[in-house]
Amino acid sequence: MSAEPIYDIAHLGHVEMLTNKPEASLAFFTNVFGLIESGREGDSVYLRAFDDYEFHTLKLTAANTTGIRHAGYRAASPQALERRVKAIEALGAGIGWSDGDMGHGPAYRFHDPDGHEFEIYYQTRRAKPVTPPSLKNQASPTPNRAIAPRRLDHFNLLAADVDAIRNFLPKALGSRVTEVIQLADGTLGGCWFTTNNKSYDVAYTRDHAKARGRFHHVTYAVDQREHILQAADIFLENGVHIETGPHKHAIQQTFFLYVWEPAGNRVELANAGSRLILAPDWQPVIWNEDERKKGQAWGLKTIETFHTHGTPPVAG
Amino acid sequence: MSAEPIYDIAHLGHVEMLTNKPEASLAFFTNVFGLIESGREGDSVYLRAFDDYEFHTLKLTAANTTGIRHAGYRAASPQALERRVKAIEALGAGIGWSDGDMGHGPAYRFHDPDGHEFEIYYQTRRAKPVTPPSLKNQASPTPNRAIAPRRLDHFNLLAADVDAIRNFLPKALGSRVTEVIQLADGTLGGCWFTTNNKSYDVAYTRDHAKARGRFHHVTYAVDQREHILQAADIFLENGVHIETGPHKHAIQQTFFLYVWEPAGNRVELANAGSRLILAPDWQPVIWNEDERKKGQAWGLKTIETFHTHGTPPVAG
Amino acid sequence: MSAEPIYDIAHLGHVEMLTNKPEASLAFFTNVFGLIESGREGDSVYLRAFDDYEFHTLKLTAANTTGIRHAGYRAASPQALERRVKAIEALGAGIGWSDGDMGHGPAYRFHDPDGHEFEIYYQTRRAKPVTPPSLKNQASPTPNRAIAPRRLDHFNLLAADVDAIRNFLPKALGSRVTEVIQLADGTLGGCWFTTNNKSYDVAYTRDHAKARGRFHHVTYAVDQREHILQAADIFLENGVHIETGPHKHAIQQTFFLYVWEPAGNRVELANAGSRLILAPDWQPVIWNEDERKKGQAWGLKTIETFHTHGTPPVAG
Amino acid sequence: MSAEPIYDIAHLGHVEMLTNKPEASLAFFTNVFGLIESGREGDSVYLRAFDDYEFHTLKLTAANTTGIRHAGYRAASPQALERRVKAIEALGAGIGWSDGDMGHGPAYRFHDPDGHEFEIYYQTRRAKPVTPPSLKNQASPTPNRAIAPRRLDHFNLLAADVDAIRNFLPKALGSRVTEVIQLADGTLGGCWFTTNNKSYDVAYTRDHAKARGRFHHVTYAVDQREHILQAADIFLENGVHIETGPHKHAIQQTFFLYVWEPAGNRVELANAGSRLILAPDWQPVIWNEDERKKGQAWGLKTIETFHTHGTPPVAG
Repeated sequence: MSAEPIYDIAHLGHVEMLTNKPEASLAFFTNVFGLIESGREGDSVYLRAFDDYEFHTLKLTAANTTGIRHAGYRAASPQALERRVKAIEALGAGIGWSDGDMGHGPAYRFHDPDGHEFEIYYQTRRAKPVTPPSLKNQASPTPNRAIAPRRLDHFNLLAADVDAIRNFLPKALGSRVTEVIQLADGTLGGCWFTTNNKSYDVAYTRDHAKARGRFHHVTYAVDQREHILQAADIFLENGVHIETGPHKHAIQQTFFLYVWEPAGNRVELANAGSRLILAPDWQPVIWNEDERKKGQAWGLKTIETFHTHGTPPVAG
Repeated sequence: MSAEPIYDIAHLGHVEMLTNKPEASLAFFTNVFGLIESGREGDSVYLRAFDDYEFHTLKLTAANTTGIRHAGYRAASPQALERRVKAIEALGAGIGWSDGDMGHGPAYRFHDPDGHEFEIYYQTRRAKPVTPPSLKNQASPTPNRAIAPRRLDHFNLLAADVDAIRNFLPKALGSRVTEVIQLADGTLGGCWFTTNNKSYDVAYTRDHAKARGRFHHVTYAVDQREHILQAADIFLENGVHIETGPHKHAIQQTFFLYVWEPAGNRVELANAGSRLILAPDWQPVIWNEDERKKGQAWGLKTIETFHTHGTPPVAG
Repeated sequence: MSAEPIYDIAHLGHVEMLTNKPEASLAFFTNVFGLIESGREGDSVYLRAFDDYEFHTLKLTAANTTGIRHAGYRAASPQALERRVKAIEALGAGIGWSDGDMGHGPAYRFHDPDGHEFEIYYQTRRAKPVTPPSLKNQASPTPNRAIAPRRLDHFNLLAADVDAIRNFLPKALGSRVTEVIQLADGTLGGCWFTTNNKSYDVAYTRDHAKARGRFHHVTYAVDQREHILQAADIFLENGVHIETGPHKHAIQQTFFLYVWEPAGNRVELANAGSRLILAPDWQPVIWNEDERKKGQAWGLKTIETFHTHGTPPVAG
Repeated sequence: MSAEPIYDIAHLGHVEMLTNKPEASLAFFTNVFGLIESGREGDSVYLRAFDDYEFHTLKLTAANTTGIRHAGYRAASPQALERRVKAIEALGAGIGWSDGDMGHGPAYRFHDPDGHEFEIYYQTRRAKPVTPPSLKNQASPTPNRAIAPRRLDHFNLLAADVDAIRNFLPKALGSRVTEVIQLADGTLGGCWFTTNNKSYDVAYTRDHAKARGRFHHVTYAVDQREHILQAADIFLENGVHIETGPHKHAIQQTFFLYVWEPAGNRVELANAGSRLILAPDWQPVIWNEDERKKGQAWGLKTIETFHTHGTPPVAG
């Protein structure tokens, strides 16, 4: 009898994004991208989407660089948190406990093999909207903006060695691998992981710049593909750089649109339709290089910057 | 430290629906509703949606009545299956093991307090499409039909005593309660349960006819709300009885359309947008009678037959 | 050889709506309904949708009552305007010339047989957005609001004698009748007219209150049906009275949503898909009472207030 | 006082497409693209979309080449037809009268300056569906197929000298120019024309191959942008070559998807939202080369074959 799947991590909780244009980035995320401000502390503004149940899902921090400072996952229970801490310590990847921040309680911090910082926590703070939503099963009122994503969906990191990540995350978080890109030399060009029924909550793709700890994008989910088409018009009207899309990924079948926020961090709006990973014994889907050359689902060629642009930028 | 959430059940696997008009019902499900036939055995035809990964999610069985014969849930692992069997035996609700059918291996059968039959199993049979889908992360090719739901979503049963169900399912399956209707007398008028991140996989509502073991509806998920609007035109064009919708439920916020298949069983198409229950400590949302009187989310009054029509019909 | 179709009127230009709650009505139209303010003069605020090419399509006028003061149609040319004036004078329906207002030049005013005031004009003033739209073939930038109709679509008036209107408008404006409701007694219960390829620019329905000159609703067009579903959430979130919908009309097949602005005037958002009346010899579609009893396209029963509520209200 | 706009032509009626793979082309148009067969005669099959009111909008003719044989426009009245014939004769472009074919009565044929053949007619034959549609204001029942365009929308021709066309069509058909591409040398790279409220019914773009009489594409309209996203999946699943899209054109703002039918003729599905040209004095929108270099509305670069591939192909 094989090992049971691990359900210790409930979901991705938040991403801390660094910006060297804090005012412009904040204006983008609140006025254009449709997030809600939950609070401020130090150099950080805490943001959430209208149906994110936690205090924040994006911590936007002023810095002299861009990229990601850390990502947080919420454990399924205090006991589950303890199990994960032990597993991570056994992997020798642990940093130690922090007190948490405005958004949650004590968190255990660790590094992935590429040097990105993660934390896991259980105690959390709930979103408290100024006025209650009209439907009581929703975290906050639906914003009256053209773009209004429902919730944080996933994030994407760059890594020099994706195989190392593929070995690490299942042990550290109990993540399951749902899809991979296998290069001709047998190594992984990309790997998609999930801790729950979403088809992925984090993806890693190879950093062609061979830098470490870099960020590719963070993604919020909208309810319908049409909302992404509308968003494209609003991004255009507001002078936001649209990098690629709207189109449908072959991998994961997500309908997507990628833009760059003012400081250069890549942000995605996505819709997965009703697709979920329900099989507890899902076998990873393997895409080879020939299949990738076909482009995205409907033939769009992947734009060059999608392979080269990460944050922070690498000195060229 | 409180008890941990239980993740032993991976997902709803299938529903066995009875029909006394087997040819008409089958024609409806394959030609209009867009399901795919996987196989036949005895009085049953096994059907699946294009992205259901198992052999079947609907077992359509010719009978001299209508309604549901049983529903099956897939366990997360062999070990999880054993744990659930023990829990159900301890509740005194067990019937015993069956060998399974065309779609899956050994299954443990039990009754809910209202007399509906359930089964849980782990060994399953995968869908094998005649031709592979163009995207290899999909179970079967997308049908070239106006209506083509992606996957089974949930089902809804009637029960004389919803409170009894509310106490039973969390113990039997480890289900979590996400929303309830609480009547003025303090009893439950409805209860929504989930075993995973979907906001519900089964709902129970009070059977006003005070019968036992009756069926309200089974639901398949489509990728976009617009697909439900299109489906309404196709149902109209094909003479299918549209009971109510399209509209948005206040409870669970699902966009819905209800029709009756030729034998009278209610069938729903639904889209939940990107809404998921990610919080491991989600607190049930409680709707009272006054709130229910407002109708559905945008004010549609619930149609009378929605409260009175179940299958099999009750002799009046 | 029969008479040629008349193309003297280019399109419906604007509606002047009366409100006894001017501040609340204006806040509704600009903050929630997504119209743009073009200017103010006297008791009126001039509003337009983002792709209305004229200065205004809604003139919102403070008054001690509600309803419509007048509707304006733009002629296809100065010569066409002259021809229409002569025709209307011959019908004995003329009032005379006005100088126009902030939005257009000289206008010829007349009454329909129910006493509603109309005007026709050719010289017009173009919308001048503060900043140019990102796509130069659009009149104004797309607003960053959840609801943002593209353009004025049509309006609907109540009349005691719909047959009289059916005889009048084709002579006065050259309108063509596209669909009618024929009651069991042979008289018309409703009549839909167009001056161009839209399937209707004005509809008349019988005023059961037997009052004169009353208003039923004005409608703006959105680009997609999904935008109407989104709008429903925003109306709900902002406390706007949703009267009925979203649903699809059997007559004209328009996807619709009706709300009441704060003073009680009915306002509709609609989407007609790609449906147009292209046939120059289109024969009116006749709906009888039995057909109307089936409800709207997908079976929604027409809500009672839709038959009884007009503005101004009739003293009961 | 300037000349009045001409409304003699009601709408584009049909396109005759040539195919050297007649069986495969027919299977594509009926089984995948969702058109309905109206009849057959000689080497031609007559096809229509579900809400085309005429017998046919596409005449698919077996030949030893590809491209277009002729396009037909319907006049607004017999008198209007006479006026157009006189105007065309005066231009010296006339060929003469034909008896019509299965789909319509006598037609007057002429050539555009690039040698494409056109015809205009008034007497027409109406679509007669085998079973009536469920909604009587629709020409035929909605097909139960994933792709089901509502009606013919427009076509696009290649021409060596677009300026010559720009001078010709307004005189011949009374067409109005809605948008143009003006090249750096002052000549036109493209020109969009309409005879009614649609923003275009024919477009001409420069034939870089300097051939004559070639065809770029024919387009059918669907009701919603989401239908085009669905269509993309169906084209992918059925092995149809997707050339580019889905995306939104900057010119005309149409949401589009281009595929090649089996013989290589380009076919488009499009949705214009609720955009119409209502202004009788619309001024042509002029796009220069720099603006075109920005790509489509949301930045998609125009694919190379879009400039090079026409039918019939030019011997290289």
